[in-house]
Amino acid sequence: MYSFNNDYSEGACEEIMRAMVETNGMQSGGYGLDEICDEAKKRIKEKLNCTTCDIHFLVGGTQCNQTVIASALRPYEAVIAADGGHINVHETGAIEATGHKVLVCEDRNGKVLSEGVRRIVEAHSDEHMVRPAMVYISDATEIGTIYTKAELQALREVCDAYGLYLYLDGARLAMALVAEDNDVTYEDLARYCDVCYLGGTKCGALFGEAVVIFNDRLKENFRYSIKQRGGMLAKGRLLGIQFRELFRDDLYLKLARHAVAMAQKLQKGMMELGISFATPTSTNQIFPILNDALLQAMKKHYLYQYWGKLDEDRHIVRLVTSWATKESAVDEFLAWLTSYRKQQERNCG
Amino acid sequence: MYSFNNDYSEGACEEIMRAMVETNGMQSGGYGLDEICDEAKKRIKEKLNCTTCDIHFLVGGTQCNQTVIASALRPYEAVIAADGGHINVHETGAIEATGHKVLVCEDRNGKVLSEGVRRIVEAHSDEHMVRPAMVYISDATEIGTIYTKAELQALREVCDAYGLYLYLDGARLAMALVAEDNDVTYEDLARYCDVCYLGGTKCGALFGEAVVIFNDRLKENFRYSIKQRGGMLAKGRLLGIQFRELFRDDLYLKLARHAVAMAQKLQKGMMELGISFATPTSTNQIFPILNDALLQAMKKHYLYQYWGKLDEDRHIVRLVTSWATKESAVDEFLAWLTSYRKQQERNCG
Amino acid sequence: MYSFNNDYSEGACEEIMRAMVETNGMQSGGYGLDEICDEAKKRIKEKLNCTTCDIHFLVGGTQCNQTVIASALRPYEAVIAADGGHINVHETGAIEATGHKVLVCEDRNGKVLSEGVRRIVEAHSDEHMVRPAMVYISDATEIGTIYTKAELQALREVCDAYGLYLYLDGARLAMALVAEDNDVTYEDLARYCDVCYLGGTKCGALFGEAVVIFNDRLKENFRYSIKQRGGMLAKGRLLGIQFRELFRDDLYLKLARHAVAMAQKLQKGMMELGISFATPTSTNQIFPILNDALLQAMKKHYLYQYWGKLDEDRHIVRLVTSWATKESAVDEFLAWLTSYRKQQERNCG
Amino acid sequence: MYSFNNDYSEGACEEIMRAMVETNGMQSGGYGLDEICDEAKKRIKEKLNCTTCDIHFLVGGTQCNQTVIASALRPYEAVIAADGGHINVHETGAIEATGHKVLVCEDRNGKVLSEGVRRIVEAHSDEHMVRPAMVYISDATEIGTIYTKAELQALREVCDAYGLYLYLDGARLAMALVAEDNDVTYEDLARYCDVCYLGGTKCGALFGEAVVIFNDRLKENFRYSIKQRGGMLAKGRLLGIQFRELFRDDLYLKLARHAVAMAQKLQKGMMELGISFATPTSTNQIFPILNDALLQAMKKHYLYQYWGKLDEDRHIVRLVTSWATKESAVDEFLAWLTSYRKQQERNCG
Repeated sequence: MYSFNNDYSEGACEEIMRAMVETNGMQSGGYGLDEICDEAKKRIKEKLNCTTCDIHFLVGGTQCNQTVIASALRPYEAVIAADGGHINVHETGAIEATGHKVLVCEDRNGKVLSEGVRRIVEAHSDEHMVRPAMVYISDATEIGTIYTKAELQALREVCDAYGLYLYLDGARLAMALVAEDNDVTYEDLARYCDVCYLGGTKCGALFGEAVVIFNDRLKENFRYSIKQRGGMLAKGRLLGIQFRELFRDDLYLKLARHAVAMAQKLQKGMMELGISFATPTSTNQIFPILNDALLQAMKKHYLYQYWGKLDEDRHIVRLVTSWATKESAVDEFLAWLTSYRKQQERNCG
Repeated sequence: MYSFNNDYSEGACEEIMRAMVETNGMQSGGYGLDEICDEAKKRIKEKLNCTTCDIHFLVGGTQCNQTVIASALRPYEAVIAADGGHINVHETGAIEATGHKVLVCEDRNGKVLSEGVRRIVEAHSDEHMVRPAMVYISDATEIGTIYTKAELQALREVCDAYGLYLYLDGARLAMALVAEDNDVTYEDLARYCDVCYLGGTKCGALFGEAVVIFNDRLKENFRYSIKQRGGMLAKGRLLGIQFRELFRDDLYLKLARHAVAMAQKLQKGMMELGISFATPTSTNQIFPILNDALLQAMKKHYLYQYWGKLDEDRHIVRLVTSWATKESAVDEFLAWLTSYRKQQERNCG
Repeated sequence: MYSFNNDYSEGACEEIMRAMVETNGMQSGGYGLDEICDEAKKRIKEKLNCTTCDIHFLVGGTQCNQTVIASALRPYEAVIAADGGHINVHETGAIEATGHKVLVCEDRNGKVLSEGVRRIVEAHSDEHMVRPAMVYISDATEIGTIYTKAELQALREVCDAYGLYLYLDGARLAMALVAEDNDVTYEDLARYCDVCYLGGTKCGALFGEAVVIFNDRLKENFRYSIKQRGGMLAKGRLLGIQFRELFRDDLYLKLARHAVAMAQKLQKGMMELGISFATPTSTNQIFPILNDALLQAMKKHYLYQYWGKLDEDRHIVRLVTSWATKESAVDEFLAWLTSYRKQQERNCG
Repeated sequence: MYSFNNDYSEGACEEIMRAMVETNGMQSGGYGLDEICDEAKKRIKEKLNCTTCDIHFLVGGTQCNQTVIASALRPYEAVIAADGGHINVHETGAIEATGHKVLVCEDRNGKVLSEGVRRIVEAHSDEHMVRPAMVYISDATEIGTIYTKAELQALREVCDAYGLYLYLDGARLAMALVAEDNDVTYEDLARYCDVCYLGGTKCGALFGEAVVIFNDRLKENFRYSIKQRGGMLAKGRLLGIQFRELFRDDLYLKLARHAVAMAQKLQKGMMELGISFATPTSTNQIFPILNDALLQAMKKHYLYQYWGKLDEDRHIVRLVTSWATKESAVDEFLAWLTSYRKQQERNCG
């Protein structure tokens, strides 16, 4: 049973595992105050071409989101997100648990666009309503789509106009950056965002996300916030080790390229077999529409995530690939599909 | 520069590192819903001789504390802790951030005793004050002392009398269980506590703590609380792997025995050199009283944690050992001390 | 300048003012523990025909909502409300500030209907999402519409099916109960709701709302919640005095009848003048659609609440009446409108 | 049964009741945005001799405390208070419910002194602990003592040195200002505090407290905080009416003078009868030490607040007077005590 269920089914890439083992016996300072973390930060700063940002390593994405958002907002302020945004749906109310409302923006193919932000801000006019103060976006989004540079720029402008922070959740940023139709660069992060995080968990690490703070106003005492929200790892160097490796040479994007190539091979192959897609994507998540019979057959051999019912007979499922996805598994899946199709045709013929 | 600064300076014990590498390529379910976690839980239950408890693996101690406490209490309820209790001092207000007051109990050698609990509860008489609803204890405590079975039993009785939960923070439980003067057993956890956690981070793991819930009323929907507080690890099996190894045979206590033996060797050796201790302990943390000159000399060769100033010339420091502490380092430190002493005597002679 | 801006522009009805003055010199217990509050509760229970409910008096509506909701829900649970629900839009995130998400239900003429609740609950399937646990409705709604008995019954059924509490915000309940097309009774509150509040502020009192708890599970320690959320009035008897008067004989509904009669007279009169309405209502809030010229003219003589722009030339405004609205002011407004119309016709003629 | 139980047993002073009745029928804007509130604020500013402060009227003290503190602090910041401080003991954890820790300072006769603040701040050294950011004091304190100008000045200096806000809870400020040994003036509030509130509830009003913000950094969007914490009164002018009257001429202090005179007459009279006091005070709360027999006898005729057991036979009680306390009741109580004493002497003789 091969799993296309998500991009965190396996351990870490071999470079990271090797470094973990090599550094295992050495002593180092706790809580991320060690030389390995420092080296990892240095490499990320070089990659982002930004020397003035602050970098903090946390274990997971929900932790990053709640820590960044609760740290940035005053109690009566709210964060704007897409309807399907991770913070709105899939964090069990972690943001609200820190006291803040998530304002839902109309969803444009998984994305928050500047016009939607503008409408929300203008509808919040006085002290009887929350004050929108931050825009949360994911790139790639929860449905595998990506932002264009122009969209980011427009968001930056609307944020500047209304005094909002722009926060980019980069759990799958690497996959966005290597997508065929992407025009966003590492440098654009500093240019357009106030704060973002670069995902490790879904891109080669055992765990770990790197919060990067560009805006000086968000930097002060951030370590207090990490500790208070439960995100300060005692053996913090474990995060440093992983990001040091990911950002050695081009490893981070190399791993992402493999993930994306595998998903795109799947998508292309399935399209050639006549399968249509809810929203074709260029990253490592794809959303085929499958009829019931195919889904039942597939269930016996493959793990996937059920996404939703389209109509009586058709379902949307999500298939995800990662740095660890075996090309042979992709080929076998396509072969299986082809053979299933032929079988079906015979049955109908 | 050798570090006796804490018990999380190194990586993981070799059994864990090996298992990490071995399982790295396999696929498994996310968020702790996998077979390795199941196996780890089974082993812990056997060790605790309790089949009905629920077990959840989290990454760190502050996460455990905030998740357990916020999940157990109603909004106006408070948790009782010793003045020096980890939740009261060293978690940046993580408990208060979930909305709950920490009520400080008089500290008896680092411990909360039943009489102190009784006094607090009786002083909280009406709806203008918080309602005490849980007692938080650490075993071993933050200053290396341990609870006796009789003390736990008395706490259980006062908790039953007043309708309080008893929660044991076992970040260093293994070290308590192997202390020479300990009479508490694994089985006593289920007998006296409503919930506890068994620490992995400080006892051989890279990270990880196992929350064990004995009281049925605390079990419902605990995974929602984990997720909401940011403690649900995507690759949850990493926690399972570590606890599966720690609870294979006697490894967990074996690692603790080494840690404690090292600290006790240090304590005994220093006492023989005429050094007195703030509170002699029987676990892996020791608290020697050092004069200023010695401290300055020591600083050049060893890392320790500064604990507090006793008077003009004397300081308390904390030395901590772990499963990873090298006996040769302990011997060298004692040798260094001896030679420092001789040097001093010569200078005075 | 006469104000139809809201239903809290004046003080209290004369019966209340008289009772306030009469009782001013007497001594009584603080925090609502006094005989006057007891008497007020007794009268409300008689009116609701329910002897087993608990009643608590609070100062304002947002206080009631945050106290009731935060007291009822566990941390990871959420409350379902209409998009335009007061708790979702007009309380500056007070519910989120207690840690809970407000889940938005599709809005059916200002109301939450059972089918919408069902859809939300079924979309929240696991611990990565909040658990819906309460339905919040307002009767009359924020746009003046009211629930039918059948709708309440259907909500009760869906709540029972999914283990949800039903909470009715009755800031304008009196106005709903006396509406011409209403079929809900006082007794239905106990029959269908777990908890509700009867509004005083908008129906004859200086301030004050009566929280009525029917479900035993919500009763325990509610006074702790009131105190913690800042809602416990020192001179609590002031609330008792007001509700004792409102629930003496039929005063509460009598005041509401006047409010509704005034709004309906306005609505009918405006319709006769050819003005159309966004949603015609049968309570004390009406929502005429006015063209720009009329709005500009009206602005000089009357206060109203601007509700929203319909198109280039047309606006929706809200006019509200209360127990204190003078019939002469209503007549004068209609006369002014008539004369404005004639003027317009002359200008065009 | 006459009550010396607290200073909120009666309604409001006659000037306020008259103004309430007079303004009852007029229409005004909601939520404190009305001319009466403006006038009240103007008068307070004149009294404080400060034109630049912001003033907001809230209903009660706990509301003020939670709103001011939660608005001023970042999530990981804490407020310092005396052990017996109202926010630490008698607000059911309202401050913690907003996410903030209350750090307990050693109590010096009910007061927080600069040296205690310094010790707390210096003990909080890194991100593993909360960051102290505000000092909360009550003047008069919860046990009737008052601050000297020198003490306030020293607190201001330590606050400036460490970057802390100084917040004065003035629930009984009027009684402090008129105490015989007081040397603090209205002007000193602006000089030494960043924010304070002037109590109305305990000094002649039905309810109401005036939050006065001196420090510009605390002013922004304060109305959002009021609304979010449930403290925005719909008919906000009711608060304006009361403070307009209290700050007309010298009424506020005149009422306080009566309250204090009554308590001091009681204290002096009781001392003359040989009764000793826990801490003699110069304000409107007094704390006599009574033996058991006297307490039992007194219980039949007078209400008081039980404060604590001193030893087997002796108890501390609190007697409180207010603007409404009748001098005849004071005289009768002293007469009753005298006659009780004589009776006792006869019995023993």
